[in-house]
Amino acid sequence: MNGEGVMTVYGGIEAGGTKFICAVGNNPQDIHAIERIPTTTPAETIARTIEYFRRIAATEPLTAVGIASFGPVDPNPRSPTFGYSTSTPRPGWANVNLAGEIAAALGLPVAFDTDVNGAALAESRWGAARGLDTFIYLTVGTGFGGGGLVNGKPMHGLLHPEMGHIRIPHNRETDPFPGMCPFHGDCLEGLAAGPAIEQRWGQRGETLPADHPAWELEAHYLSLGLMNHILMLSPQRIILGGGVMAQSQLFPLVRQKVVAQLNGYVSAPEILQRIDEYIVPPALGNLAGVLGAIALAQMTFN
Amino acid sequence: MNGEGVMTVYGGIEAGGTKFICAVGNNPQDIHAIERIPTTTPAETIARTIEYFRRIAATEPLTAVGIASFGPVDPNPRSPTFGYSTSTPRPGWANVNLAGEIAAALGLPVAFDTDVNGAALAESRWGAARGLDTFIYLTVGTGFGGGGLVNGKPMHGLLHPEMGHIRIPHNRETDPFPGMCPFHGDCLEGLAAGPAIEQRWGQRGETLPADHPAWELEAHYLSLGLMNHILMLSPQRIILGGGVMAQSQLFPLVRQKVVAQLNGYVSAPEILQRIDEYIVPPALGNLAGVLGAIALAQMTFN
Repeated sequence: MNGEGVMTVYGGIEAGGTKFICAVGNNPQDIHAIERIPTTTPAETIARTIEYFRRIAATEPLTAVGIASFGPVDPNPRSPTFGYSTSTPRPGWANVNLAGEIAAALGLPVAFDTDVNGAALAESRWGAARGLDTFIYLTVGTGFGGGGLVNGKPMHGLLHPEMGHIRIPHNRETDPFPGMCPFHGDCLEGLAAGPAIEQRWGQRGETLPADHPAWELEAHYLSLGLMNHILMLSPQRIILGGGVMAQSQLFPLVRQKVVAQLNGYVSAPEILQRIDEYIVPPALGNLAGVLGAIALAQMTFN
Repeated sequence: MNGEGVMTVYGGIEAGGTKFICAVGNNPQDIHAIERIPTTTPAETIARTIEYFRRIAATEPLTAVGIASFGPVDPNPRSPTFGYSTSTPRPGWANVNLAGEIAAALGLPVAFDTDVNGAALAESRWGAARGLDTFIYLTVGTGFGGGGLVNGKPMHGLLHPEMGHIRIPHNRETDPFPGMCPFHGDCLEGLAAGPAIEQRWGQRGETLPADHPAWELEAHYLSLGLMNHILMLSPQRIILGGGVMAQSQLFPLVRQKVVAQLNGYVSAPEILQRIDEYIVPPALGNLAGVLGAIALAQMTFN
């Protein structure tokens, strides 16, 4: 409630590569409306998003809107291209003024960050990262994204992290697949995101049995990535989400390999004794992104 | 000055593997005394350090002491082993209560962090990172350490980063050297720290000419490491110090390779147009560590 006793309510948009999830509410237990809009052209997708929130706002005035978007984006409020998607390879979506167009059409303040920073913020408020000030949220699906909070705030710096694009060892004798990142070939995303699994084995990951060697190899690459993330950032926890991580057999494999790779160098009981609570799935599931968008709006315009 | 008009002055200790640099002062323009004590056994080194500060404090009372130490250490003030060196392979130095012994002997409050977080803090106050809230400080010498500030505060999280131990691609056909990290073999430190250069080429790096192929290979590994650091953390600047970086021919090589490896993915003018100001040497030189120790004491007990 604000000072006049009017309930505040926020809009959230998880801008994804296949769909825009739009919701209105305040937290996981208080979602008033939700809608999924397929991602097509920017013009059509943004128009349908605006139309949805206009319809809602006619009966329930919104305080602000948050957008948690696929990257790369410009999340710096002091930049002339704040709120734009930037160098994405998705056709038509490079240099689109996502936040600006939605803010102008709705006449509302708009908060803007990456989908993964948004999801991390939601998990820190209501999910698997409550009470932590430094942790990361990785999503392994069509792409491989990563964000998080460090010292209690979303990670930005120069732009925002692109944790999925780090380089890791790749033994081409045991895995001749060359990687498929259009920028870096066999970076982590190029070797371990969903499309790499499909390309390497000739069928989509979800059609491979749980004991297929694909998962041992996938866990190997994920563990190399996570080892680097741990050494770079010293996160208090790692949340691993996204379509690929729906293969729950990956979690024990990844945990075991991370501990083996670190080889006792990081002497923290969280890793040496409680790895099951250290590398975990998101608690908010598929709603982490859109709840993150709402949390971004709340954090920025409360 | 404090409320009574008495000048405040701080002690700083850069606890290094070959020497402890001890100083008394307030900033780079105001250093009252400095002393270098060789690192031998913990008992002897700590005793000589205490003796030095006792002698100083007899005429100039200190407000507090900061320690910026080689890692791994426990920098968490809420931990029972706060201020200890932990799993270091240096003989005798594992599980030494560095901060506790010095605090007890001097009867002074002691701030404690890694040498690289300390150096980063000093560079942010007085050196190459003024005005930045998210940047990293790497030191390439006997070891390969990394720290920094994120969102304006030193990086901690679970413990502290160990950025030098990340895994990177290593082509054993072009470089059969197996790496020499006792924990991870061919991690970044194992391939690119000073001892790896000496072992690979059969002579110390400083005796190799500036056009020796060692430097092209060294720049290759450094650029892979820096690429990962950029993608993980999105730093606004990278400060590269340590004995190996005294080979100044490395800077242009590293800058060029980092830009090539990123391949346009991080579309920031700082990288695409101003890389010379993005990857830089420390401005405080060899004093960054001990000034960092003073800055840690100031930040914690001001």
